Amino acid sequence: MPQDPFDWIDEQHERRRAAGLVRTLRPRPAQERVTDLAGNDYLGLARHPEVTEAAAAAARRWGAGATGSRLVTGSTELHAELEAELAAFCGFEAALVLSSGYAANLAAVTALSGPAHAGALLVSDAGNHASLIDGCRLARARTAVVPHRAPDLVRKTLAEHGGPALAVTDSVFSVDGDAAPLPGLAAVCREYGAALLVDDAHGLGVLGEGGRGAVHAAGLAGAPDVVATVTLSKSLGAQGGAVLGPARVIAQLVNSARTFVFDTGLAPAAAGAALAALGVLRREPERAARVRSVAAGLHRRVTDAGLTAARPDAAVVAVHAPSPPAAVRWAADCRAAGVAVGCFRPPSVPDGISRLRLTARADLTDDQVRAAVGTVVRTAPGARGEERDASGCRTGG
Amino acid sequence: MPQDPFDWIDEQHERRRAAGLVRTLRPRPAQERVTDLAGNDYLGLARHPEVTEAAAAAARRWGAGATGSRLVTGSTELHAELEAELAAFCGFEAALVLSSGYAANLAAVTALSGPAHAGALLVSDAGNHASLIDGCRLARARTAVVPHRAPDLVRKTLAEHGGPALAVTDSVFSVDGDAAPLPGLAAVCREYGAALLVDDAHGLGVLGEGGRGAVHAAGLAGAPDVVATVTLSKSLGAQGGAVLGPARVIAQLVNSARTFVFDTGLAPAAAGAALAALGVLRREPERAARVRSVAAGLHRRVTDAGLTAARPDAAVVAVHAPSPPAAVRWAADCRAAGVAVGCFRPPSVPDGISRLRLTARADLTDDQVRAAVGTVVRTAPGARGEERDASGCRTGG
Repeated sequence: MPQDPFDWIDEQHERRRAAGLVRTLRPRPAQERVTDLAGNDYLGLARHPEVTEAAAAAARRWGAGATGSRLVTGSTELHAELEAELAAFCGFEAALVLSSGYAANLAAVTALSGPAHAGALLVSDAGNHASLIDGCRLARARTAVVPHRAPDLVRKTLAEHGGPALAVTDSVFSVDGDAAPLPGLAAVCREYGAALLVDDAHGLGVLGEGGRGAVHAAGLAGAPDVVATVTLSKSLGAQGGAVLGPARVIAQLVNSARTFVFDTGLAPAAAGAALAALGVLRREPERAARVRSVAAGLHRRVTDAGLTAARPDAAVVAVHAPSPPAAVRWAADCRAAGVAVGCFRPPSVPDGISRLRLTARADLTDDQVRAAVGTVVRTAPGARGEERDASGCRTGG
Repeated sequence: MPQDPFDWIDEQHERRRAAGLVRTLRPRPAQERVTDLAGNDYLGLARHPEVTEAAAAAARRWGAGATGSRLVTGSTELHAELEAELAAFCGFEAALVLSSGYAANLAAVTALSGPAHAGALLVSDAGNHASLIDGCRLARARTAVVPHRAPDLVRKTLAEHGGPALAVTDSVFSVDGDAAPLPGLAAVCREYGAALLVDDAHGLGVLGEGGRGAVHAAGLAGAPDVVATVTLSKSLGAQGGAVLGPARVIAQLVNSARTFVFDTGLAPAAAGAALAALGVLRREPERAARVRSVAAGLHRRVTDAGLTAARPDAAVVAVHAPSPPAAVRWAADCRAAGVAVGCFRPPSVPDGISRLRLTARADLTDDQVRAAVGTVVRTAPGARGEERDASGCRTGG
């Protein structure tokens, strides 16, 4: 009698438990008495009445689901309106909405890596998001992983390759909140005729003029050789993802991206919510500046208190923790004291350093920021100075 | 000066155009005077007032988006309630909700293919959905593709492999609507200690007692060695996907499935809508029998009229078309006459045969079915008998 085919899971669980790396879900109630420094609702729009009412109205008008692939019954005029507005706001010729940012990245990388016979090279930053990495794994092209934020090494890689290529990078990296050197990267790509794909998930709503994103800020929006992906689930408070680029690139995705063709279209409620959020952001562009200012305040206060954190280029402030179990305890202590923070541990962090991940929100007051940082500092693991050094944490900067 | 890095797209477009394979989006208005035989809203619940009101209420109560990964802020009590109800309804110990069925399949295949060092084999039916295929491509395991619906060849493959394995199959294949031989497959898997993963996207709501799905119908729900995936976007009229299985399997996904860990949680509106749809289905289990009866009626009428179509095992009836351009014209003629049908062309069909894809819906009346089939028959390409033979179409059955 063969053994149970899932017995190997128990061994993996035991190994995770011993290392303090078990993750469990903690469902939250609808209303919580906590200050949220953990979510990605950077502009505070997920619960904005205009946004939630737009979601409700869209569900009533268009149905609870899209009912099929975007190529069959899943494209509504609401999707088309959202795509036109996303493209116009971010400065691109066209846009395509998918059911998640993950799906958008898989679509863009796989569909834009060139025809299989062309031998294109994907050049991927070592700090890229899992969805870009999985896109590279799925694409029928070779991938060269280059060290983090190193345009010179991208140049070297492109020069050695000497053929068609697509460079792939986050605009703001999700773990440490640091920004990619987009102008330098674009220059290197153009030097070698390579295309550039930028995941602007953490840039939209936060960076650039009125929150138009990091690609717009770098003067690259609408360029014929640049494609961006964004999410509708962070600054826009909804769900979904989109690819932005030249019209022919979008048409190529419609025809060949498997996570577009073989997925049900985004639910109308999410499309309606994202469209309403874009409307709020157009009307209140100061929200983008505010979230950056809150992030800068968070960083200044935690580092003033002696904690180690990288300087934020957008809304994410990553505070180093001495170990996975210490990070878990620290996050739990914060929550018990009324502050929700993210807790990133291996394998979600590329360098093995656990972090508390604090995210800024445009609707936090200075008093809330001060009080929340007070909690983070007060609950920090004791005698952390030495522990942090021993764990090999990098200094922020 | 290097050429534009996306010029290769124009060549691909030209090739598609010449072959009649260009796909474009056709956004639909909120209300259409058409009979919909194209969507996957099998139970007619996407616009059911209880379902759309639940979506609206969830957006208001929980926000327009989940605001983060399910592991950070993206798990609400609504998600937990939906997971408990999905598991209870389908007969499994536990469930995990993801943002799409595509994401659920990527998660299940990659996270359950065993530890990298174990040398597990994925055994995948040749007719599987793109998301299962992409899951196999992403998994750190070797994949053996076996001919369509052939448990004996799965046995042969497992015997030759002689190690840990996961067999992967749709329960109902999306192109032809034919069913996998689940009892035979499960028996073969148990003989060799392999696990079985079944994508029940087209079975939930349609097959099994009260629509509990094909896995439940086969007596496999809740088995320690069986995992199912479902979508919330077909019979449940919403958006999202779920994995159903033993609690330790679900915990393994929470800890290791990248499309779960690194994706934003499903929007509350979609979770609320799916939960309400499950409530309607529990109260009105006859909807499942009705959709099967409508599908049988569609098939009988089109084949009585001399068209070629495979006998449906669930809600999908695939009618063969002589060529891709003929299929496009046929579908357009149907739509002009008030009937929306799906049009499947290469590369979405594994055998290269274009099809009109008709889907049954529980809320269609017999009169609507009769009238719709009349339209499909009347608009069928002229002198199709010879054309169909020349294109090598298979006979239904």
